[in-house]
Amino acid sequence: MTEATSSATQHNDNDGESNPYPAHWGPTAWTLLADLRQRCPLVQCLTNFVSMDMAANTLIAAGASPAMIHSLGEIPDFTPQTHALCVNVGTLSPSWVPAMKAAAELMIKLGKPWVLDPVSAGASGFRLNTCLALVGLKPTVIRGNGSEIIALSKASLGASKGVESAHGSSMDALEAAKSLAKSSGSVVAVSGAVDIVTDGNRVVGVHNGVPMMQKIAATGCAVTALIAAFVALDPSHPLEATASALSVFGIAGELGMVLAKGPASLRVHLIDSLTALDEAALLSRVRIADM
Amino acid sequence: MTEATSSATQHNDNDGESNPYPAHWGPTAWTLLADLRQRCPLVQCLTNFVSMDMAANTLIAAGASPAMIHSLGEIPDFTPQTHALCVNVGTLSPSWVPAMKAAAELMIKLGKPWVLDPVSAGASGFRLNTCLALVGLKPTVIRGNGSEIIALSKASLGASKGVESAHGSSMDALEAAKSLAKSSGSVVAVSGAVDIVTDGNRVVGVHNGVPMMQKIAATGCAVTALIAAFVALDPSHPLEATASALSVFGIAGELGMVLAKGPASLRVHLIDSLTALDEAALLSRVRIADM
Amino acid sequence: MTEATSSATQHNDNDGESNPYPAHWGPTAWTLLADLRQRCPLVQCLTNFVSMDMAANTLIAAGASPAMIHSLGEIPDFTPQTHALCVNVGTLSPSWVPAMKAAAELMIKLGKPWVLDPVSAGASGFRLNTCLALVGLKPTVIRGNGSEIIALSKASLGASKGVESAHGSSMDALEAAKSLAKSSGSVVAVSGAVDIVTDGNRVVGVHNGVPMMQKIAATGCAVTALIAAFVALDPSHPLEATASALSVFGIAGELGMVLAKGPASLRVHLIDSLTALDEAALLSRVRIADM
Repeated sequence: MTEATSSATQHNDNDGESNPYPAHWGPTAWTLLADLRQRCPLVQCLTNFVSMDMAANTLIAAGASPAMIHSLGEIPDFTPQTHALCVNVGTLSPSWVPAMKAAAELMIKLGKPWVLDPVSAGASGFRLNTCLALVGLKPTVIRGNGSEIIALSKASLGASKGVESAHGSSMDALEAAKSLAKSSGSVVAVSGAVDIVTDGNRVVGVHNGVPMMQKIAATGCAVTALIAAFVALDPSHPLEATASALSVFGIAGELGMVLAKGPASLRVHLIDSLTALDEAALLSRVRIADM
Repeated sequence: MTEATSSATQHNDNDGESNPYPAHWGPTAWTLLADLRQRCPLVQCLTNFVSMDMAANTLIAAGASPAMIHSLGEIPDFTPQTHALCVNVGTLSPSWVPAMKAAAELMIKLGKPWVLDPVSAGASGFRLNTCLALVGLKPTVIRGNGSEIIALSKASLGASKGVESAHGSSMDALEAAKSLAKSSGSVVAVSGAVDIVTDGNRVVGVHNGVPMMQKIAATGCAVTALIAAFVALDPSHPLEATASALSVFGIAGELGMVLAKGPASLRVHLIDSLTALDEAALLSRVRIADM
Repeated sequence: MTEATSSATQHNDNDGESNPYPAHWGPTAWTLLADLRQRCPLVQCLTNFVSMDMAANTLIAAGASPAMIHSLGEIPDFTPQTHALCVNVGTLSPSWVPAMKAAAELMIKLGKPWVLDPVSAGASGFRLNTCLALVGLKPTVIRGNGSEIIALSKASLGASKGVESAHGSSMDALEAAKSLAKSSGSVVAVSGAVDIVTDGNRVVGVHNGVPMMQKIAATGCAVTALIAAFVALDPSHPLEATASALSVFGIAGELGMVLAKGPASLRVHLIDSLTALDEAALLSRVRIADM
């Protein structure tokens, strides 16, 4: 999501040089964002308490309609009305797990997309096992940071059943993402200096964003919710939708950074920029490349 | 709460023409706000997780004291100390329902006001039934958007017991609000392009606010909490207090919009403006009219 | 935390006059903040829903890593990985109490610091008894406002077992803080016009901050989380760490106030200022004095 290059102001128009960002990604991302604003997908979020404000405002800014409804008893009535589901385990408690599973299962049954954010997947055995069970319910997309995806990938391989350990983590994020994508059937996104998105075979890198976005709580959770909204628009192309969502959020951060004096003002300007993002700004800034 | 008229900069002073906004509303709203700042009413909120930050900061900005205390076991000790109660079902779960009911019942028993925000009332049978049960506990005020009030009004009439359906909704928001007010004995407020407030007989419209307020998560929840604070000051005139709270919040949005570049900066400037709102600005901007 | 003096722009450099702020505090606070940024302590927060956003962003802004993990089942795996624990009872419910106790007990067993924020300690018997039980688990630091510390101190003495009563509160905040510190073995901090920090014998006053910080929801909760991060760096000097955290947060508020137009913009600028706070600004502004 973030990138520390000093050339961040140079985009697709670096004349003379070979442009590493294929031109088709800009129109792909713009078409999805324009479609999102027109169709206003309803995104149910079973997400953590820290992220609720940021995720809801991110979805609204992009043009989607958030619904933070998490009770098990409401899922049969409400979930079929939604266009996508976002499950985030950040402030997990056992009482939320049945609703997370039921909502995910219902979305799959209905042929609708759902997205998993395995926050701190390796923090405890309970959390890791819950994440593994959710991965088994075939999320359309899984998005996390490097350590979360590595923990989940290794556990999926049976290489680790306990808490994530710093030692012995020979697997890097790209390898882990590809392995997890293959074993789960999900598109896997890894946030980092360059965001990685893979379906296990194809890999793309998203080069948008600014480093200071990492200093705002719940930006990862917010972009996962945004991915859910994008995937709702074109569930048959989750890799493209995921990369587009990551790029759009990153661009909003780049534009917000122009006015920001720190992480709290960046948060404000990021949301404002996402609301106002137009075709010209988006097309000139999308930086997605095959890896 | 919001209004898209281009004449938003023209207020009560449109010279020569008949002013549709009776002059008594300005002093009514100002007297209540000044009283609120002096008496600092304690408002207990059993509200949803998304809105807690926004509702707490809105109450503080207006001069009230928020208390997000929701445990059933604390109600006998704490609720009698409060001046008003706000119950919001946004992130409803079964474990919260007994406390919502107990707090509402205690407020009624103590002769103190309580306000209901039936968020997404029609989203599920569980939610609708919970809202109906709460309506049966005689809220002083019910505030929702059009679809929520319509869902609740129809269900109160026995016309619908399940999930809100888009088809067959011949009832409009005003009709629904009046019907719900009559059947419940509550003042009912409907947020929209013009906010409607009715006790079943009298109807007033509040013409303050800006459209971008709808792009901020939990503004509806926040204004419901603000209504609770206003009603605490004059429980025997809930219609006047409700219309005043809606107008004051809308004016804070209008003033905030002068500096705002999007919904996130509007949120910041709205809260700042609510804190600083003075008599002259309020009197020149209150736009409440009989309908 | 706040101070209404008109001399707030005069700091340690009031030449000619005796400077009441000993020069060693500036370097103490700066060393801790620089250390915090380098070591990035992991702070587990079992905190209230209102404060989660503000506390997480405050910790990140200072350089710490927040983890809002609250499930009982995760404590054996996760808590040993943390450097400090923050327990805040703001939106207390019975289901959270076992995890609060288990996490606190584990930290003590591991020889690591934990900090208690007894929000509204006197609001109910349940809350007061929970706070007393937590005090019995030997928090490294207890931080509250005057009425919370008075309620807790009196209850610790057996003088009151019920809800806080306004009448008969002859004990002032300083006396209560010293008494509570002696009986609990904790460092006790009382936020107010001047923040007080005491271990029962030594008492220091922190004269940083601006009055408008009290108009932002959850600033008290946020500074308690920040105290946890500071104490993690030097657990054997909790009084110094606590006073330094209070001073640093107050200075961030002073610097933020330069750009703020109200409480919501102050919140933004406070977080930005905390992120950017440098040695020169800190050294010129630290105002801590023995009392």
